[in-house]
Amino acid sequence: MRVGELSRRSGVPIPTIKYYLREGLLAPGVAVASNQADYGEEHLRRLLLVRALIDVGGVSVAGAREVVGALTAYADDPLELLGVAQSSVAPRHQPDRATPEWLAARGRVTELVAERGWLVEAWSPEMDQVADALAAGGSLGVPELSEKLGEYADTAASLAAVEVGMVLARPDPAARMELVVLGTVLGEALFSALRMLAHQHESKRQLELGKPGPGIAQ
Amino acid sequence: MRVGELSRRSGVPIPTIKYYLREGLLAPGVAVASNQADYGEEHLRRLLLVRALIDVGGVSVAGAREVVGALTAYADDPLELLGVAQSSVAPRHQPDRATPEWLAARGRVTELVAERGWLVEAWSPEMDQVADALAAGGSLGVPELSEKLGEYADTAASLAAVEVGMVLARPDPAARMELVVLGTVLGEALFSALRMLAHQHESKRQLELGKPGPGIAQ
Repeated sequence: MRVGELSRRSGVPIPTIKYYLREGLLAPGVAVASNQADYGEEHLRRLLLVRALIDVGGVSVAGAREVVGALTAYADDPLELLGVAQSSVAPRHQPDRATPEWLAARGRVTELVAERGWLVEAWSPEMDQVADALAAGGSLGVPELSEKLGEYADTAASLAAVEVGMVLARPDPAARMELVVLGTVLGEALFSALRMLAHQHESKRQLELGKPGPGIAQ
Repeated sequence: MRVGELSRRSGVPIPTIKYYLREGLLAPGVAVASNQADYGEEHLRRLLLVRALIDVGGVSVAGAREVVGALTAYADDPLELLGVAQSSVAPRHQPDRATPEWLAARGRVTELVAERGWLVEAWSPEMDQVADALAAGGSLGVPELSEKLGEYADTAASLAAVEVGMVLARPDPAARMELVVLGTVLGEALFSALRMLAHQHESKRQLELGKPGPGIAQ
Protein backbone atom coordinates (compact mmCIF):
# COMPACT_ATOMS: atom_id res chain seq x y z
CA MET A 1 0.00 0.00 0.00
CA ARG A 2 1.02 3.64 -0.46
CA VAL A 3 1.72 5.98 2.45
CA GLY A 4 -1.78 7.51 2.08
CA GLU A 5 -3.45 4.18 2.67
CA LEU A 6 -1.06 3.40 5.54
CA SER A 7 -2.12 6.71 7.08
CA ARG A 8 -5.82 6.05 6.54
CA ARG A 9 -5.70 2.53 7.96
CA SER A 10 -3.57 3.45 10.99
CA GLY A 11 -5.13 6.84 11.72
CA VAL A 12 -1.61 8.30 11.84
CA PRO A 13 -1.12 11.52 9.78
CA ILE A 14 1.30 11.27 6.83
CA PRO A 15 3.80 13.84 8.26
CA THR A 16 3.99 11.78 11.46
CA ILE A 17 4.63 8.61 9.45
CA LYS A 18 7.44 10.42 7.61
CA TYR A 19 8.87 11.56 10.92
CA TYR A 20 8.86 7.97 12.23
CA LEU A 21 10.59 6.82 9.03
CA ARG A 22 13.30 9.46 9.46
CA GLU A 23 13.71 8.58 13.13
CA GLY A 24 14.08 4.89 12.35
CA LEU A 25 10.93 3.80 14.20
CA LEU A 26 9.54 2.37 11.00
CA ALA A 27 11.49 0.47 8.32
CA PRO A 28 11.53 2.09 4.85
CA GLY A 29 9.01 0.80 2.33
CA VAL A 30 9.96 -0.79 -0.99
CA ALA A 31 10.74 2.00 -3.51
CA VAL A 32 8.41 1.75 -6.51
CA ALA A 33 9.14 5.13 -8.12
CA SER A 34 11.59 7.98 -7.49
CA ASN A 35 9.35 9.47 -4.83
CA GLN A 36 7.05 6.61 -3.91
CA ALA A 37 7.32 3.59 -1.65
CA ASP A 38 5.16 0.61 -0.97
CA TYR A 39 4.29 -0.57 2.54
CA GLY A 40 3.05 -3.91 3.77
CA GLU A 41 0.93 -5.24 6.62
CA GLU A 42 4.04 -5.46 8.83
CA HIS A 43 4.49 -1.68 8.44
CA LEU A 44 0.91 -1.10 9.54
CA ARG A 45 1.39 -3.34 12.53
CA ARG A 46 4.67 -1.72 13.54
CA LEU A 47 3.09 1.72 13.17
CA LEU A 48 0.23 0.75 15.49
CA LEU A 49 2.76 -0.60 17.99
CA VAL A 50 4.79 2.63 17.92
CA ARG A 51 1.64 4.71 18.38
CA ALA A 52 0.50 2.60 21.31
CA LEU A 53 3.90 2.95 23.00
CA ILE A 54 3.92 6.72 22.53
CA ASP A 55 0.27 7.67 22.94
CA VAL A 56 -0.94 5.16 25.49
CA GLY A 57 2.27 4.19 27.25
CA GLY A 58 3.69 7.72 27.36
CA VAL A 59 7.00 6.36 26.01
CA SER A 60 9.29 8.94 24.34
CA VAL A 61 10.22 8.68 20.66
CA ALA A 62 13.75 7.66 21.70
CA GLY A 63 12.30 5.02 24.05
CA ALA A 64 10.03 3.66 21.32
CA ARG A 65 13.03 3.38 18.97
CA GLU A 66 14.88 1.32 21.59
CA VAL A 67 11.92 -0.97 22.10
CA VAL A 68 11.43 -1.48 18.37
CA GLY A 69 15.14 -2.26 18.00
CA ALA A 70 15.04 -4.68 20.92
CA LEU A 71 12.15 -6.62 19.37
CA THR A 72 14.57 -7.60 16.59
CA ALA A 73 17.80 -7.72 18.60
CA TYR A 74 16.41 -9.82 21.44
CA ALA A 75 13.94 -11.92 19.47
CA ASP A 76 15.11 -14.99 21.40
CA ASP A 77 15.72 -13.46 24.79
CA PRO A 78 12.56 -12.50 26.68
CA LEU A 79 14.42 -11.30 29.78
CA GLU A 80 16.58 -8.84 27.81
CA LEU A 81 13.54 -7.62 25.91
CA LEU A 82 11.65 -7.18 29.18
CA GLY A 83 14.53 -5.05 30.49
CA VAL A 84 14.38 -2.70 27.49
CA ALA A 85 10.57 -2.47 27.63
CA GLN A 86 10.74 -1.73 31.35
CA SER A 87 13.35 0.98 31.01
CA SER A 88 11.28 2.67 28.28
CA VAL A 89 8.50 3.44 30.76
CA ALA A 90 10.80 4.43 33.64
CA PRO A 91 11.20 8.13 34.52
CA ARG A 92 14.11 9.85 32.79
CA HIS A 93 15.50 11.78 35.73
CA GLN A 94 17.49 10.28 38.51
CA PRO A 95 17.51 11.54 42.08
CA ASP A 96 20.60 11.79 44.27
CA ARG A 97 21.61 8.29 45.30
CA ALA A 98 24.61 9.11 47.48
CA THR A 99 22.68 10.02 50.63
CA PRO A 100 22.58 7.84 53.76
CA GLU A 101 18.75 7.82 53.48
CA TRP A 102 18.92 6.43 49.97
CA LEU A 103 21.43 3.76 50.92
CA ALA A 104 19.24 2.72 53.86
CA ALA A 105 16.22 2.51 51.54
CA ARG A 106 18.25 0.47 49.06
CA GLY A 107 19.17 -1.93 51.87
CA ARG A 108 15.48 -2.30 52.66
CA VAL A 109 14.83 -3.29 49.03
CA THR A 110 17.60 -5.91 49.09
CA GLU A 111 16.01 -7.35 52.24
CA LEU A 112 12.55 -7.41 50.71
CA VAL A 113 13.79 -9.25 47.63
CA ALA A 114 15.74 -11.75 49.76
CA GLU A 115 12.83 -12.38 52.14
CA ARG A 116 10.51 -13.14 49.25
CA GLY A 117 13.07 -15.14 47.29
CA TRP A 118 12.45 -13.00 44.22
CA LEU A 119 14.66 -14.10 41.34
CA VAL A 120 16.04 -10.72 40.26
CA GLU A 121 19.52 -9.55 39.40
CA ALA A 122 21.19 -7.56 42.20
CA TRP A 123 21.94 -4.76 39.70
CA SER A 124 18.37 -4.38 38.40
CA PRO A 125 17.69 -0.66 37.91
CA GLU A 126 14.21 -1.27 39.34
CA MET A 127 15.75 -2.09 42.74
CA ASP A 128 17.22 1.42 42.70
CA GLN A 129 13.89 2.88 41.58
CA VAL A 130 12.08 1.27 44.51
CA ALA A 131 14.72 2.83 46.77
CA ASP A 132 14.21 6.21 45.03
CA ALA A 133 10.52 6.19 45.96
CA LEU A 134 11.15 5.03 49.54
CA ALA A 135 13.97 7.54 50.10
CA ALA A 136 11.90 10.41 48.65
CA GLY A 137 9.02 9.37 50.90
CA GLY A 138 11.35 9.24 53.91
CA SER A 139 12.85 12.67 53.29
CA LEU A 140 9.37 14.16 52.82
CA GLY A 141 7.99 12.72 56.04
CA VAL A 142 6.08 9.90 54.37
CA PRO A 143 7.20 6.78 56.26
CA GLU A 144 3.93 5.16 55.17
CA LEU A 145 5.44 4.01 51.87
CA SER A 146 8.13 2.07 53.72
CA GLU A 147 5.65 0.77 56.28
CA LYS A 148 3.34 -0.53 53.57
CA LEU A 149 6.12 -1.89 51.36
CA GLY A 150 4.96 -5.44 51.99
CA GLU A 151 1.43 -4.64 50.78
CA TYR A 152 2.80 -2.89 47.70
CA ALA A 153 4.98 -5.91 46.96
CA ASP A 154 2.08 -8.34 47.45
CA THR A 155 -0.07 -6.42 44.99
CA ALA A 156 2.76 -6.16 42.47
CA ALA A 157 3.43 -9.88 42.75
CA SER A 158 -0.18 -10.84 42.14
CA LEU A 159 -0.44 -8.55 39.13
CA ALA A 160 2.86 -9.85 37.73
CA ALA A 161 1.67 -13.44 38.09
CA VAL A 162 -1.42 -12.65 36.00
CA GLU A 163 0.60 -10.77 33.37
CA VAL A 164 3.42 -13.29 32.99
CA GLY A 165 0.85 -16.08 32.83
CA MET A 166 -0.87 -14.13 30.05
CA VAL A 167 2.39 -14.02 28.05
CA LEU A 168 3.27 -17.68 28.55
CA ALA A 169 -0.23 -18.77 27.56
CA ARG A 170 0.61 -17.79 23.98
CA PRO A 171 1.91 -20.79 22.08
CA ASP A 172 3.81 -18.85 19.38
CA PRO A 173 7.24 -17.52 20.56
CA ALA A 174 7.17 -14.39 18.34
CA ALA A 175 3.68 -13.51 19.58
CA ARG A 176 4.89 -14.00 23.14
CA MET A 177 7.74 -11.57 22.63
CA GLU A 178 5.37 -8.92 21.35
CA LEU A 179 3.22 -9.34 24.44
CA VAL A 180 6.30 -8.92 26.66
CA VAL A 181 6.59 -5.40 25.25
CA LEU A 182 2.91 -4.56 24.95
CA GLY A 183 2.05 -6.12 28.30
CA THR A 184 4.75 -4.09 30.04
CA VAL A 185 3.77 -0.79 28.46
CA LEU A 186 0.01 -1.08 27.90
CA GLY A 187 -0.45 -3.08 31.12
CA GLU A 188 1.25 -0.28 33.01
CA ALA A 189 -1.04 2.35 31.46
CA LEU A 190 -4.10 0.16 32.08
CA PHE A 191 -3.24 -0.53 35.70
CA SER A 192 -2.28 3.06 36.40
CA ALA A 193 -5.62 4.41 35.14
CA LEU A 194 -7.56 1.72 37.04
CA ARG A 195 -5.62 2.50 40.23
CA MET A 196 -6.64 6.15 39.88
CA LEU A 197 -10.30 5.27 39.34
CA ALA A 198 -10.12 2.98 42.36
CA HIS A 199 -8.58 5.83 44.37
CA GLN A 200 -11.53 8.06 43.51
CA HIS A 201 -13.95 5.35 44.53
CA GLU A 202 -12.13 4.48 47.76
CA SER A 203 -11.70 8.14 48.70
CA LYS A 204 -15.41 8.80 48.31
CA ARG A 205 -16.36 5.58 50.05
CA GLN A 206 -14.00 5.98 52.99
CA LEU A 207 -14.80 9.71 53.36
CA GLU A 208 -18.53 8.91 53.38
CA LEU A 209 -17.97 6.30 56.07
CA GLY A 210 -16.22 8.93 58.18
CA LYS A 211 -19.08 11.42 58.00
CA PRO A 212 -21.88 11.42 60.56
CA GLY A 213 -24.98 9.76 59.10
CA PRO A 214 -28.27 11.59 58.53
CA GLY A 215 -29.72 10.30 61.82
CA ILE A 216 -27.01 11.85 63.99
CA ALA A 217 -27.81 15.20 65.67
CA GLN A 218 -25.43 18.12 65.16
CA MET B 1 18.67 30.40 55.56
CA ARG B 2 20.41 31.67 52.41
CA VAL B 3 20.06 29.96 49.03
CA GLY B 4 23.44 28.24 49.56
CA GLU B 5 22.22 26.50 52.69
CA LEU B 6 18.92 25.66 51.04
CA SER B 7 20.93 24.03 48.26
CA ARG B 8 23.17 22.14 50.66
CA ARG B 9 20.32 20.85 52.81
CA SER B 10 18.13 19.82 49.87
CA GLY B 11 20.89 18.53 47.59
CA VAL B 12 19.43 20.68 44.79
CA PRO B 13 22.00 22.83 42.90
CA ILE B 14 21.59 26.62 43.22
CA PRO B 15 20.90 27.20 39.48
CA THR B 16 18.06 24.65 39.68
CA ILE B 17 16.61 26.40 42.74
CA LYS B 18 16.72 29.69 40.81
CA TYR B 19 15.00 28.03 37.89
CA TYR B 20 12.23 26.73 40.16
CA LEU B 21 11.84 30.23 41.64
CA ARG B 22 11.49 31.74 38.15
CA GLU B 23 9.04 29.03 37.13
CA GLY B 24 6.90 29.60 40.20
CA LEU B 25 7.46 26.14 41.70
CA LEU B 26 8.92 27.74 44.81
CA ALA B 27 7.70 30.91 46.53
CA PRO B 28 10.23 33.78 46.69
CA GLY B 29 12.21 34.15 49.91
CA VAL B 30 12.12 37.24 52.11
CA ALA B 31 14.46 39.90 50.63
CA VAL B 32 17.19 40.79 53.13
CA ALA B 33 19.48 42.76 50.79
CA SER B 34 19.35 43.94 47.18
CA ASN B 35 20.49 40.60 45.89
CA GLN B 36 19.85 38.26 48.82
CA ALA B 37 16.81 36.46 50.13
CA ASP B 38 16.10 34.38 53.17
CA TYR B 39 14.36 31.00 53.00
CA GLY B 40 12.57 29.05 55.70
CA GLU B 41 11.87 25.40 56.50
CA GLU B 42 8.72 25.54 54.34
CA HIS B 43 10.90 26.37 51.32
CA LEU B 44 13.09 23.38 52.02
CA ARG B 45 10.06 21.15 52.33
CA ARG B 46 8.46 22.47 49.16
CA LEU B 47 11.75 22.04 47.29
CA LEU B 48 11.99 18.39 48.37
CA LEU B 49 8.39 17.87 47.27
CA VAL B 50 9.07 19.37 43.83
CA ARG B 51 12.19 17.22 43.42
CA ALA B 52 10.34 14.08 44.38
CA LEU B 53 7.58 14.83 41.88
CA ILE B 54 10.06 15.47 39.07
CA ASP B 55 12.83 12.97 39.80
CA VAL B 56 10.95 10.06 41.27
CA GLY B 57 7.47 10.56 39.85
CA GLY B 58 8.65 11.59 36.38
CA VAL B 59 6.27 14.59 36.52
CA SER B 60 7.11 17.48 34.16
CA VAL B 61 8.00 20.94 35.48
CA ALA B 62 4.62 22.20 34.26
CA GLY B 63 2.89 19.29 36.00
CA ALA B 64 4.76 19.95 39.23
CA ARG B 65 3.70 23.61 39.10
CA GLU B 66 0.05 22.55 38.78
CA VAL B 67 0.35 20.17 41.72
CA VAL B 68 2.05 22.79 43.89
CA GLY B 69 -0.67 25.31 43.00
CA ALA B 70 -3.39 22.77 43.73
CA LEU B 71 -2.01 22.09 47.21
CA THR B 72 -2.93 25.69 48.05
CA ALA B 73 -5.99 26.08 45.84
CA TYR B 74 -7.65 22.84 46.95
CA ALA B 75 -6.44 22.74 50.54
CA ASP B 76 -9.96 21.74 51.63
CA ASP B 77 -10.94 19.53 48.73
CA PRO B 78 -9.14 16.18 48.63
CA LEU B 79 -11.01 14.95 45.53
CA GLU B 80 -10.04 18.00 43.44
CA LEU B 81 -6.45 17.71 44.64
CA LEU B 82 -6.43 14.00 43.80
CA GLY B 83 -7.60 14.87 40.28
CA VAL B 84 -4.72 17.30 39.73
CA ALA B 85 -2.15 14.88 41.20
CA GLN B 86 -3.49 12.09 39.01
CA SER B 87 -3.38 14.13 35.82
CA SER B 88 0.22 15.14 36.56
CA VAL B 89 1.39 11.55 36.17
CA ALA B 90 -0.81 10.73 33.16
CA PRO B 91 0.79 10.51 29.69
CA ARG B 92 0.73 13.76 27.72
CA HIS B 93 -0.32 12.42 24.33
CA GLN B 94 -3.78 11.33 23.46
CA PRO B 95 -4.65 8.59 20.99
CA ASP B 96 -7.50 8.77 18.49
CA ARG B 97 -10.76 8.34 20.38
CA ALA B 98 -13.18 8.51 17.46
CA THR B 99 -12.82 4.90 16.31
CA PRO B 100 -15.50 2.22 16.79
CA GLU B 101 -12.90 0.10 18.64
CA TRP B 102 -12.26 2.89 21.12
CA LEU B 103 -15.95 3.50 21.69
CA ALA B 104 -16.50 -0.21 22.31
CA ALA B 105 -13.60 -0.25 24.79
CA ARG B 106 -15.04 2.83 26.51
CA GLY B 107 -18.38 1.01 26.83
CA ARG B 108 -16.57 -1.89 28.47
CA VAL B 109 -15.10 0.52 31.04
CA THR B 110 -18.52 2.00 31.83
CA GLU B 111 -19.80 -1.55 32.38
CA LEU B 112 -16.88 -2.46 34.64
CA VAL B 113 -17.41 0.61 36.81
CA ALA B 114 -21.16 -0.04 37.00
CA GLU B 115 -20.74 -3.75 37.84
CA ARG B 116 -18.38 -2.92 40.70
CA GLY B 117 -20.36 0.06 41.92
CA TRP B 118 -17.28 2.24 41.78
CA LEU B 119 -18.09 5.81 42.86
CA VAL B 120 -16.43 7.69 40.00
CA GLU B 121 -17.59 10.58 37.85
CA ALA B 122 -18.72 9.52 34.37
CA TRP B 123 -16.38 12.14 32.87
CA SER B 124 -13.24 11.00 34.71
CA PRO B 125 -10.32 11.21 32.28
CA GLU B 126 -9.07 7.92 33.74
CA MET B 127 -12.10 6.12 32.27
CA ASP B 128 -10.90 7.28 28.85
CA GLN B 129 -7.34 6.23 29.67
CA VAL B 130 -8.46 2.70 30.55
CA ALA B 131 -10.26 2.63 27.19
CA ASP B 132 -7.08 3.91 25.48
CA ALA B 133 -5.12 0.92 26.77
CA LEU B 134 -7.86 -1.60 25.93
CA ALA B 135 -8.40 -0.16 22.43
CA ALA B 136 -4.66 -0.10 21.70
CA GLY B 137 -4.45 -3.69 22.90
CA GLY B 138 -7.40 -4.66 20.70
CA SER B 139 -6.00 -3.04 17.56
CA LEU B 140 -2.61 -4.70 18.16
CA GLY B 141 -4.04 -8.18 18.59
CA VAL B 142 -3.76 -8.20 22.39
CA PRO B 143 -7.26 -9.19 23.55
CA GLU B 144 -5.62 -10.43 26.78
CA LEU B 145 -5.81 -6.99 28.37
CA SER B 146 -9.57 -6.94 27.92
CA GLU B 147 -9.92 -10.55 29.00
CA LYS B 148 -7.98 -9.91 32.21
CA LEU B 149 -9.62 -6.54 32.92
CA GLY B 150 -11.32 -7.97 36.00
CA GLU B 151 -7.98 -9.12 37.47
CA TYR B 152 -6.43 -5.75 36.73
CA ALA B 153 -9.35 -4.02 38.43
CA ASP B 154 -9.16 -6.34 41.47
CA THR B 155 -5.48 -5.57 41.95
CA ALA B 156 -6.02 -1.84 41.48
CA ALA B 157 -8.86 -1.90 44.01
CA SER B 158 -6.82 -3.68 46.66
CA LEU B 159 -3.88 -1.31 46.21
CA ALA B 160 -6.18 1.73 46.33
CA ALA B 161 -7.78 0.49 49.55
CA VAL B 162 -4.33 0.30 51.19
CA GLU B 163 -3.31 3.72 49.88
CA VAL B 164 -6.50 5.59 50.75
CA GLY B 165 -6.46 3.97 54.19
CA MET B 166 -2.90 5.23 54.57
CA VAL B 167 -4.05 8.81 53.83
CA LEU B 168 -7.07 8.72 56.11
CA ALA B 169 -5.02 7.29 58.97
CA ARG B 170 -3.33 10.69 59.30
CA PRO B 171 -5.14 12.80 61.88
CA ASP B 172 -3.98 16.21 60.59
CA PRO B 173 -5.94 17.43 57.51
CA ALA B 174 -2.98 19.35 55.98
CA ALA B 175 -0.72 16.31 56.36
CA ARG B 176 -3.43 14.21 54.72
CA MET B 177 -3.56 16.50 51.73
CA GLU B 178 0.15 16.24 51.23
CA LEU B 179 -0.09 12.48 51.27
CA VAL B 180 -2.85 12.61 48.63
CA VAL B 181 -0.25 14.13 46.29
CA LEU B 182 2.78 12.17 47.43
CA GLY B 183 0.88 8.91 47.66
CA THR B 184 -0.43 9.31 44.12
CA VAL B 185 2.93 10.17 42.60
CA LEU B 186 5.45 8.29 44.76
CA GLY B 187 3.10 5.35 45.22
CA GLU B 188 2.83 5.06 41.44
CA ALA B 189 6.62 5.07 41.05
CA LEU B 190 7.01 2.57 43.90
CA PHE B 191 4.39 0.19 42.57
CA SER B 192 5.64 0.46 39.01
CA ALA B 193 9.20 -0.49 39.97
CA LEU B 194 7.96 -3.36 42.19
CA ARG B 195 5.74 -4.65 39.38
CA MET B 196 8.78 -4.77 37.10
CA LEU B 197 10.87 -6.63 39.67
CA ALA B 198 7.98 -9.04 40.15
CA HIS B 199 7.82 -9.50 36.37
CA GLN B 200 11.48 -10.47 36.30
CA HIS B 201 10.94 -12.94 39.11
CA GLU B 202 7.77 -14.42 37.65
CA SER B 203 9.29 -14.67 34.16
CA LYS B 204 12.28 -16.60 35.47
CA ARG B 205 10.15 -18.73 37.74
CA GLN B 206 7.54 -19.60 35.14
CA LEU B 207 10.16 -20.14 32.41
CA GLU B 208 12.10 -22.49 34.72
CA LEU B 209 8.92 -24.44 35.41
CA GLY B 210 8.47 -24.94 31.68
CA LYS B 211 11.96 -26.40 31.17
CA PRO B 212 12.66 -30.09 31.55
CA GLY B 213 14.31 -30.78 34.92
CA PRO B 214 17.88 -32.15 35.29
CA GLY B 215 16.58 -35.71 35.79
CA ILE B 216 14.82 -35.85 32.45
CA ALA B 217 16.63 -37.55 29.53
CA GLN B 218 17.13 -35.60 26.30
